Amino acid sequence: MPDALEQLKSRLGDYQSLDALAYLLAWDQRTVMPPAGFQHRANHISLLQRLSHLTLIDPEVGRLLDKLESRDLDPDSWDGALVRVARRDYTKAVQVPVELSSEMARAAAESAPGWLEAKATSNFDLFLPLMERNVDLRHRYVECFGPQDEPYDVLLDDFEPEMKTSEVTRIFAEIKPELVQLIAQLRDSDVDDSFLTGDFDLDEQVALDYEVVDLFGHRPKTWRIDPTEHPFASGSGIDDIRITTHYYRDHLKSLFSTMHEYGHGLYQHQLPRAWADLPVGQATGLGLHESQSRLWENLVGRSLAFWRFFYPRLQERFPKQFRGVDVEQFYAAINKSQPSLIRIEADEVTYGMHVILRFELEQDIINGRVELKDLPELWAQKMHEYLGIDVPDHAHGVLQDMHWSSGLIGYFSTYLLGTVMSVQIWEKAAEELGDLDAQIERGEFTPLREWLGENIHAQGRKYAPQELLQRVTGSTIDAKPYLAYLKRKFGAPVAA
Amino acid sequence: MPDALEQLKSRLGDYQSLDALAYLLAWDQRTVMPPAGFQHRANHISLLQRLSHLTLIDPEVGRLLDKLESRDLDPDSWDGALVRVARRDYTKAVQVPVELSSEMARAAAESAPGWLEAKATSNFDLFLPLMERNVDLRHRYVECFGPQDEPYDVLLDDFEPEMKTSEVTRIFAEIKPELVQLIAQLRDSDVDDSFLTGDFDLDEQVALDYEVVDLFGHRPKTWRIDPTEHPFASGSGIDDIRITTHYYRDHLKSLFSTMHEYGHGLYQHQLPRAWADLPVGQATGLGLHESQSRLWENLVGRSLAFWRFFYPRLQERFPKQFRGVDVEQFYAAINKSQPSLIRIEADEVTYGMHVILRFELEQDIINGRVELKDLPELWAQKMHEYLGIDVPDHAHGVLQDMHWSSGLIGYFSTYLLGTVMSVQIWEKAAEELGDLDAQIERGEFTPLREWLGENIHAQGRKYAPQELLQRVTGSTIDAKPYLAYLKRKFGAPVAA
Repeated sequence: MPDALEQLKSRLGDYQSLDALAYLLAWDQRTVMPPAGFQHRANHISLLQRLSHLTLIDPEVGRLLDKLESRDLDPDSWDGALVRVARRDYTKAVQVPVELSSEMARAAAESAPGWLEAKATSNFDLFLPLMERNVDLRHRYVECFGPQDEPYDVLLDDFEPEMKTSEVTRIFAEIKPELVQLIAQLRDSDVDDSFLTGDFDLDEQVALDYEVVDLFGHRPKTWRIDPTEHPFASGSGIDDIRITTHYYRDHLKSLFSTMHEYGHGLYQHQLPRAWADLPVGQATGLGLHESQSRLWENLVGRSLAFWRFFYPRLQERFPKQFRGVDVEQFYAAINKSQPSLIRIEADEVTYGMHVILRFELEQDIINGRVELKDLPELWAQKMHEYLGIDVPDHAHGVLQDMHWSSGLIGYFSTYLLGTVMSVQIWEKAAEELGDLDAQIERGEFTPLREWLGENIHAQGRKYAPQELLQRVTGSTIDAKPYLAYLKRKFGAPVAA
Repeated sequence: MPDALEQLKSRLGDYQSLDALAYLLAWDQRTVMPPAGFQHRANHISLLQRLSHLTLIDPEVGRLLDKLESRDLDPDSWDGALVRVARRDYTKAVQVPVELSSEMARAAAESAPGWLEAKATSNFDLFLPLMERNVDLRHRYVECFGPQDEPYDVLLDDFEPEMKTSEVTRIFAEIKPELVQLIAQLRDSDVDDSFLTGDFDLDEQVALDYEVVDLFGHRPKTWRIDPTEHPFASGSGIDDIRITTHYYRDHLKSLFSTMHEYGHGLYQHQLPRAWADLPVGQATGLGLHESQSRLWENLVGRSLAFWRFFYPRLQERFPKQFRGVDVEQFYAAINKSQPSLIRIEADEVTYGMHVILRFELEQDIINGRVELKDLPELWAQKMHEYLGIDVPDHAHGVLQDMHWSSGLIGYFSTYLLGTVMSVQIWEKAAEELGDLDAQIERGEFTPLREWLGENIHAQGRKYAPQELLQRVTGSTIDAKPYLAYLKRKFGAPVAA
């Protein structure tokens, strides 16, 4: 009879693998699956969810946890963390009926094609019943945990462990007025970015994306990039990393989205090998996950240092487009701040308002303060209020993100939390690595990649997000470095 | 409490879905997976096999079967067939330890990259340990079923239910001398096929494959075609059909391989919708599966009728290559019979000898009459004896097929059994559909597709292969129509 720890690992390994397979199936559905296969997919994802849930809540898991907790394992050891993380997951899972969690997985898979069609035709009415179904399931999910002062906490905790809605509200309240002011200040910027629009050969764009991902770095034969409607990162393990992007013939925006997904992929790629097939070896929270994607997208990918190194390569690939545009002009253009409709294409200044809008709407949804049919109008009102722009159609408004079609409510705030943390992490990395800018200007990404790997990725879920952040940067989440960074970068007219 | 039948269906549905997922993962591994992910893949496929096996052999399944068998369900009803098929699968599965079946699945997934590398470098030594592992597992598998007069029967039965090795031997013995004679007679054919070699744009080849698959017909948004090393058909259900092919820049042979895989895909596509997520709704055997692929590849795809319809389209796509070549010349070229090295590219006459060679070697392997290290030499000897050609390297010899790297021993004979049955089925279809050739010459494939669907595909596993063939054609497997067809088509000099 294997030791209790080995028994627990074996069960948790099955649980984690079933979960990994569900992620892979979601990738498959959104990249390669023949669209008519969605019903098979929903059946299969729902089955995997049922089996993974059953594996986790098996009473024997509870008994093994009891036994292992009585051993007083070192809380700083991996074994100690494994038990702590498993207890957390187990305690949550036993409160949720298997039928509900499997139905949630089914609804997400079944809604995907409806969202695609609704977005393609800008038809909210097509989407409304799907959203109603997903929201109803989330209400039922929240109820599993008993009466809550703040029901949204239940959902948030699944994405950002141990974070409370009130804390997010406090952080966003600190950010919002500063952003509003900065946006107003930058509104009439006349930076020329006309050369970012044009004709960008799609094969060249694909090659460019691979060039950047290879340059940033990874182990050989482990990554791929595929087109999809709404970009995301996935894969089946640390040696199978799949990021996705949406190519546009007339614009290079896919490149920045790829850098963003590289950051997500890198986190998955550098999880601790010895623990990566167990829950304790996964990413500790989505906020820190986003900190990695935002770091590579913005602090690397929209930095002058990076483009001093990389711009000649870009010019070589698209000579017609960038002949006669110097690097400072290019840098100014990719950092032009201007209210726009699509979150994932927003500049660093306006980005936060897109997230705050969704965070507010989601709370209203979960607290029953809005009717779902009114979402498009509320969306338009907030876009007008926060960014001063009009939403021309639902595809560029409430239908733009895939999250709600997958039942991912409680997720959005992690994008801004992550952005905030990315600056804290970046500043710490720069302090420890010496002149980070100079390294990047020389095209040296290994020190940064390895520093992130060692300090964040390879820690898995050994520590909760804020504890890990505290250990790495000396502070829990703090909006001040982020706001100072934005003012430094955008407060004065951008270079050139 | 649901009825026993509903309970059984629910369990068998899980079993079937886990199996379907393993197939999809194998597709993923051979088409899109980053190669370094193979270890994750092996873990996941092995887990799925363990779970599906455990689901099937759950004692409750046995009790439900006992209960349902006592009800004397109509043996011709779907419910009766469901119970009969489940009993067959259950009876076999309970004899095999779960650890063994999951290890077999793992070994197959782990061997895939080794086979790719061995083939690419034509290095049998790389492949030998993988083959030894797979063969050893098959020996252990055979032993699970107790002493056997003919151990190979155990393996054969997994691919061709209720067929015995002795029966295959008898059929092949009838075929072999006739083929030897026909091959000798055709050896010095001087048909000009030089225009089949040249420069065929890969994008055009991809478009051509989709054109043919769409022309043969299927429901919308259900199929895809991807490149791979060794072509196969897969998918995750009747509305998610994925065929694969291997493109060569200098030759159109991918087209015929695609027609072949279309036949496999169509079988999966037309399985009975109401039963397709249960074991009883699957294909009844690999021989009949091959009959479908060989039918579309050869009886349609290498017919003069088809090319009278399709050749102008091909000429339009590759004008340089086929300008000045008329349809009769083209037809003669694609039907040129000439001993060659690669089974899946062999003409209809020589094809059978490739299969017989493998069938003989596999029996020697399973009966321990050969050492695996001697396989390349034995292969070369038999190729010389049967086809009169020399094997230049292992990549064009013993390493050419992916089957043995996946542990698929017992499979090969179904290729020739299927080819034999394809002619019986074709002749019956022609009898019932009226002038099948004329329909094809008009580009009408719907009658044939629907006839096959109704008579074969939609029957699922309601009948064992030979019983189904008997019901459809009035006869069990019979080599005479096949041999007569070959002599008709090849015995006299081919047209032009």
